[in-house]
Amino acid sequence: MSEKFETALARSAARVTAFLEAWLTETPKAGEAGRHPVLVEAMRHGVLNGGKRFRPFLVYECAGVGGSVSADEVTPAAAALELIHCYSLVHDDLPAMDNDDLRRGKPTVHVAYNEATAILAGDALLTEAFGVIASADYKIAPEMKCVILGILARDAGTGGMVGGQSLDLASENSIVDEETIAMTQALKTGALIRAATEVGAVLGGLSADDQGHIVRFGEVLGRMFQIADDLLDLTADTVTLGKTVGKDIAAGKQTLVSIHGTKWARDHLNLLRIEAVDCVKPFGNRADILIEAVDFVVSRKS
Amino acid sequence: MSEKFETALARSAARVTAFLEAWLTETPKAGEAGRHPVLVEAMRHGVLNGGKRFRPFLVYECAGVGGSVSADEVTPAAAALELIHCYSLVHDDLPAMDNDDLRRGKPTVHVAYNEATAILAGDALLTEAFGVIASADYKIAPEMKCVILGILARDAGTGGMVGGQSLDLASENSIVDEETIAMTQALKTGALIRAATEVGAVLGGLSADDQGHIVRFGEVLGRMFQIADDLLDLTADTVTLGKTVGKDIAAGKQTLVSIHGTKWARDHLNLLRIEAVDCVKPFGNRADILIEAVDFVVSRKS
Repeated sequence: MSEKFETALARSAARVTAFLEAWLTETPKAGEAGRHPVLVEAMRHGVLNGGKRFRPFLVYECAGVGGSVSADEVTPAAAALELIHCYSLVHDDLPAMDNDDLRRGKPTVHVAYNEATAILAGDALLTEAFGVIASADYKIAPEMKCVILGILARDAGTGGMVGGQSLDLASENSIVDEETIAMTQALKTGALIRAATEVGAVLGGLSADDQGHIVRFGEVLGRMFQIADDLLDLTADTVTLGKTVGKDIAAGKQTLVSIHGTKWARDHLNLLRIEAVDCVKPFGNRADILIEAVDFVVSRKS
Repeated sequence: MSEKFETALARSAARVTAFLEAWLTETPKAGEAGRHPVLVEAMRHGVLNGGKRFRPFLVYECAGVGGSVSADEVTPAAAALELIHCYSLVHDDLPAMDNDDLRRGKPTVHVAYNEATAILAGDALLTEAFGVIASADYKIAPEMKCVILGILARDAGTGGMVGGQSLDLASENSIVDEETIAMTQALKTGALIRAATEVGAVLGGLSADDQGHIVRFGEVLGRMFQIADDLLDLTADTVTLGKTVGKDIAAGKQTLVSIHGTKWARDHLNLLRIEAVDCVKPFGNRADILIEAVDFVVSRKS
């Protein structure tokens, strides 16, 4: 990765983390009768944990393709994407779901607190995601807010991320066809990555055509992300990954990688890389960092 | 209750139920790669269950205080309130939370399906609540949508309903002061009832002063609702109530009613009734049905 890429990634992570640090406060906000400090602590545990903030990064970079957009215009929307991502991890880690004790090298929320608190912390984080966008402090046009909220609700919900997790759990210990696996992954991981790119494109004021290019890029990137993730689950070690490895096999879950093997996976990633680069070709060198993001997804070790 | 009241309650329930029946569909919507039928079934189980739709009713009636507002303008917002209410019940009933098997006389979602599905169905219902408001099909001003979304996020989230549930669970089997109980109840039950009245007032185009009257009414009504609920938990039978009774005592939970007794509760409800009626006095007979709503809350048997 270039220094420019590393700087951009670090900068977006710092901005979003600072925003979330300030947003997730134990002090009641206007109109609230009170806050439960333990709940807020658990929410912060699930969010302020050194995550890479990759989805926010995509929001910033896709917005930037359209020209100069101020951080104030992008940060709240980027933070909303991260809140949704973090809530989904808190809930996915629950005993009734993936039953994971470790996340980013630290105890998961239900281990550090308890199950009920983890369920509620996830619920509250999801709610905050929408609250951040709707907030009167976020100064973008209300029309644009509604478009962004619509994207988030679609891609995080029934026909998006939650639907994918539901399909995924239903696939445990059963033979499923490749089409179902692909659909599950498109929803479970792909939808929120696509949402990040689409929200960025909207914030960047891109034309309908250019939004289409970005969304197609997001879809390809999402597929790559999942294949890279499944490869890591097979090949990484727990300490490097910061979460339990070999989970898919233990849970009797098939992935495209477990069906076709690691050689297929690496070849397929190369093909998808070409497709992703093609999607953002119309943007010329304004998409340089997005192309590096593709390589980042493929090369990541955790 | 007058025939006029009964008609209004039945009409709002029918409208919201028809809307939700159509909204919660197994057919993927625009831009979605697919839907998991089991997830949608579980969501429908949690929502299409003959509920009274009291919060939607409050939205309609508070909007109506400002004059004539079309059902098309109110129904989606009213449905969003109901989706939030239903998601909260699905999650509250989970084994890690209140561990309840019965809701409105039917098995709860985690009993009818399983725990993971119930968690996901709740997550998806909460997401849909925001999606309904943001939807391009909902034709009210984007500015108004953002105000409504802000109210929902505030009153459903960290400093609202979820916070109240978190405080409530923390109070189990421990001695808590009356102030904490009152705060817990204001958040857990009160916040969403207040939200329903405030959303209605916004949709009705009420002046800031009149919105203030309505919100104060909502707050008093919320307190009455909780006291009536705690009375029912002590005095009703499971068949009539459609959910398990005596849960608070079994869980070692104190309520204002368990501390002060049922006589105090009934006296206090009478005092609060006077306060509630006072709040809506400025609206003259346009608030007749809201006043009946107060009596409905006090007299309900389930």
